[in-house]
Amino acid sequence: MPLSNASQSRPPAYARTRVRNRDISDRDAARDVLSAGRIAHVGFIAEGRPMVIPMIYALVGDTLYLHGAKATRIIKANRENAPLCVTVTLVDGIVVARSAFHHSMNYRCVMVHGDARHVTDAEERGQALAALTDHLLPGRWDEVRPMTAKENAATGILALGIDCMSMKMRDGPPNDDEDDYALPIWAGVIELREEASAIIDDPRLAAGVDRPASVAGYRAAGAATDEKD
Amino acid sequence: MPLSNASQSRPPAYARTRVRNRDISDRDAARDVLSAGRIAHVGFIAEGRPMVIPMIYALVGDTLYLHGAKATRIIKANRENAPLCVTVTLVDGIVVARSAFHHSMNYRCVMVHGDARHVTDAEERGQALAALTDHLLPGRWDEVRPMTAKENAATGILALGIDCMSMKMRDGPPNDDEDDYALPIWAGVIELREEASAIIDDPRLAAGVDRPASVAGYRAAGAATDEKD
Repeated sequence: MPLSNASQSRPPAYARTRVRNRDISDRDAARDVLSAGRIAHVGFIAEGRPMVIPMIYALVGDTLYLHGAKATRIIKANRENAPLCVTVTLVDGIVVARSAFHHSMNYRCVMVHGDARHVTDAEERGQALAALTDHLLPGRWDEVRPMTAKENAATGILALGIDCMSMKMRDGPPNDDEDDYALPIWAGVIELREEASAIIDDPRLAAGVDRPASVAGYRAAGAATDEKD
Repeated sequence: MPLSNASQSRPPAYARTRVRNRDISDRDAARDVLSAGRIAHVGFIAEGRPMVIPMIYALVGDTLYLHGAKATRIIKANRENAPLCVTVTLVDGIVVARSAFHHSMNYRCVMVHGDARHVTDAEERGQALAALTDHLLPGRWDEVRPMTAKENAATGILALGIDCMSMKMRDGPPNDDEDDYALPIWAGVIELREEASAIIDDPRLAAGVDRPASVAGYRAAGAATDEKD
């Protein structure tokens, strides 16, 4: 039932991987999770207490970028070399077992540890901002009104190397106790995924503006989309 | 583009709510988020560094329960009175603006701060375990094989009061700069939600076992479900 494996006396239900540089395939799996994730939960220490906030992020090479207004607490608290933990979790399913004990989730989770660096170099900032926008919506950076100097100045960007990264996951059916398999109790997996449920035009959209390539990739479920004809 | 509002000079795009006991409606909104959330991202401090891990949780009255094997790091690290931050985020949509700067997410996020208490009382443990199972899948506790004393002993449970809870959210269309509304650039919201994409019977399911009430509530998308006839 916990996201980590509850039982120590049997083969683990999840694969725990400490991702190392030499292990390319594991690093690729972790990168895939970082690519697929929507938001990161970023942990830092503020006044001796842990804080966890959701943030938009992007990966460029071996660097993870985070960003928020300079005014936000995390940017203030982590101007330089503050320890961060950036966790991205994909929830893949509910593992329904015959006992409460073996209930769990199928998931993929990547945790990146590092010390935050404040990004000041103009070229690196430009790359990071493009990557952050395109992580949210691939291809969007090339569609938008270019960033102004004022906007750029108002945007704090943190960088974090991904050399210290670990991945944990669980997949497959429940791992019940051997004796329990004979019980007349249903077991299995409810697979979960994110879907676009609707695409809503801005009420103030200028006349004659069509949906761009970046948005066309999303097909909303059912008839819920609010597209103009 | 950050999850918090980037611009300080205009009305905030999100409502930031410090939930207080006296403010019943805000507490209700925060409780709704905790009810709807699938997993929590739990932050704690280990050897001077922040750690953020996904965990299953449940709310009973004004107490949030977390649980994992006693062997897991968090339970070891937080036997008593360790500061925790438990963050539950629901991702509601991608806010597609005319400028990169005003891109954002629609989301609801609740953060609970407190000191972890290790739950040892048998009655409280029983209630917490039922709530944790039912949070994963409502009604499931009454369907499963009862927990054994050994399983109970192997399960660590942490409790956290929700008296110190804050909620942050954003909804609605993008907040573009006034001049940008005239631009021929699409803007709007891509609404996101979680869906059950498939219900997979355990390959070792005993013959003649039907899906129970707890699972029947999920209708899988399309024809992807793997139901037996």
